[in-house]
Amino acid sequence: MKIAVLGAGSWGSVLGSMLADNGNEVVLFGNNEEVNQEINDYHTNDHYMKDWQLNETTRATGDLSQALDGAALVLFVLPTQAIRSVAKNVGKILIQTGSKPLLVTATKGIEPGTKKLISDILSEEIYPNDQDKIVAISGPSHAESVAQKDLTAISCASTSSSNAQQVQQIFSNDYFRLYTNDDLVGVEVAGAVKNVIAIAAGILVGKHYGDDAKAALMTRGLAEVTRLGVNYFCAQPMTFSGLAGIGDLIVTCTSVNSRNWRCGKQLGEGKSLDYVLENMGQVVEGATTVKAVYELCQEKQIDMPISEAIYRVMYENCNVDDEITKMMGRSPKQEIRL
Amino acid sequence: MKIAVLGAGSWGSVLGSMLADNGNEVVLFGNNEEVNQEINDYHTNDHYMKDWQLNETTRATGDLSQALDGAALVLFVLPTQAIRSVAKNVGKILIQTGSKPLLVTATKGIEPGTKKLISDILSEEIYPNDQDKIVAISGPSHAESVAQKDLTAISCASTSSSNAQQVQQIFSNDYFRLYTNDDLVGVEVAGAVKNVIAIAAGILVGKHYGDDAKAALMTRGLAEVTRLGVNYFCAQPMTFSGLAGIGDLIVTCTSVNSRNWRCGKQLGEGKSLDYVLENMGQVVEGATTVKAVYELCQEKQIDMPISEAIYRVMYENCNVDDEITKMMGRSPKQEIRL
Repeated sequence: MKIAVLGAGSWGSVLGSMLADNGNEVVLFGNNEEVNQEINDYHTNDHYMKDWQLNETTRATGDLSQALDGAALVLFVLPTQAIRSVAKNVGKILIQTGSKPLLVTATKGIEPGTKKLISDILSEEIYPNDQDKIVAISGPSHAESVAQKDLTAISCASTSSSNAQQVQQIFSNDYFRLYTNDDLVGVEVAGAVKNVIAIAAGILVGKHYGDDAKAALMTRGLAEVTRLGVNYFCAQPMTFSGLAGIGDLIVTCTSVNSRNWRCGKQLGEGKSLDYVLENMGQVVEGATTVKAVYELCQEKQIDMPISEAIYRVMYENCNVDDEITKMMGRSPKQEIRL
Repeated sequence: MKIAVLGAGSWGSVLGSMLADNGNEVVLFGNNEEVNQEINDYHTNDHYMKDWQLNETTRATGDLSQALDGAALVLFVLPTQAIRSVAKNVGKILIQTGSKPLLVTATKGIEPGTKKLISDILSEEIYPNDQDKIVAISGPSHAESVAQKDLTAISCASTSSSNAQQVQQIFSNDYFRLYTNDDLVGVEVAGAVKNVIAIAAGILVGKHYGDDAKAALMTRGLAEVTRLGVNYFCAQPMTFSGLAGIGDLIVTCTSVNSRNWRCGKQLGEGKSLDYVLENMGQVVEGATTVKAVYELCQEKQIDMPISEAIYRVMYENCNVDDEITKMMGRSPKQEIRL
């Protein structure tokens, strides 16, 4: 099968190379000509993945039409902010060629402003009447680990179970395992919103609270993310206990490699948000997501005490200790409230 | 309120002292006369909690009748294997005195042989017709952290919501927060069975697998523990996403202080079970629990691939790498299967 991978960063390169290892013909689409050249000539992508070789049959191009030509599956591994413009172009090309490939998104995020999920954007721009052809993959998975063939398991979600199963089969191998899920929006919300909780976990560590406090925060964070998913996006609650939910949250909140966690830790240590964001060197997705989540829970009156506190700390100059005191002093609650 | 705390180890002492701080009259019951003497004379319990002082009003006794006399709440903080014999004596004394205190269990375990939960034992031995008076507390909480007044949140479960609320109110303070849950058995199963998954997580780390693999294992472990809870004990699935479930699992699988995790790590490094258990110095609860879980899932045909593999590694001399290969090669699965 021919597969077009849109995005030639670390995750796109590694997934593309793995899909080639699995026996597919893979073309990466990227907008950096030097990177494309390096992939084609040397089978490396040194800027993103040091000391690693792609499967030698993997090619790269800056020409979207060429990447899509004959592809039966298109994998989106782009930053959230690039998704809509690329999807528009994909939509135009597919109308011209008349082909109807399966669309898989590995991008996690909520579109600023519209607050739409990636599957909504792909559906609007490419398949307005056929969301079934969209599959989201999400779960605890870093490019570096998959490149080393470390064991990995992720969710693979679609409103069409046969399309989810097809993606499961194409991506699976002896170190990479996918579990199908029919809750597309749940898998997407879980993946996108977890970064807010990762910032909160980082803040607690920055304030020198211990492992029990962090585990409690992650669990109560999961509870409120589930509440948002169920009430705003009509997601299924059990999805949040899965690989795209708690699985990814565990890695994001315990890995020093998580930018969101590191951002939170520095905030907890008393540094200002401006200072932290300036010195991070890379985008902190959670810093944008927290705004969207705050607006959503205000709009729909969804109880999300942790996310609201993080918003106030980041954007209204509120004091972390005051927010913790407020949170611990809330009225007694039941554990399960959807 | 007078509270009897049965068990004067680290967790019993810390909970007892905290309940005294909360304004209650607390008596600890323990079978070590020296420890009792030390608590009464110096307000310390050095063997279990170094460099720490109990609330000075907390008394200790080796006389169960005296501990129970006038108590409106009895808190069980004993090892699983001691629960039934102490509960028998409590039952006899309460019949004589005619009092009917609330029973709270902080003990996590499944009784070997009968495979009964702690609440079942307490109910059988003390309140045969009134399970409503039993409340289980469970969640990510270590004696050392609570002694330092680190932030802690746990579940507090009962078939009676008013009794759960009463315990919530008695235990809560500005650093210790309880969430009520009506799924008593779910909270108990989650707390007891998580140790099997902690051993599995330790094995992966001992074999040098990475964070993504561990997060996937914890998530899929939670899925099978949920399946056991729902199908064998009629628990509610969402309980396993709560503080007694994933919350406690996170701490147990990420803390080097967890004996179960350490046991697994050494198994992963190639040491024999006999060697590991001999050198641990303390009981590894998960090593017993894994047998009970294995028998339960065989009996009821519940799909628990991780627990079954851990059983085979620990008790049938099976090879870890072979078990991992088998697990990764299982037929494709849906993510949510209860």
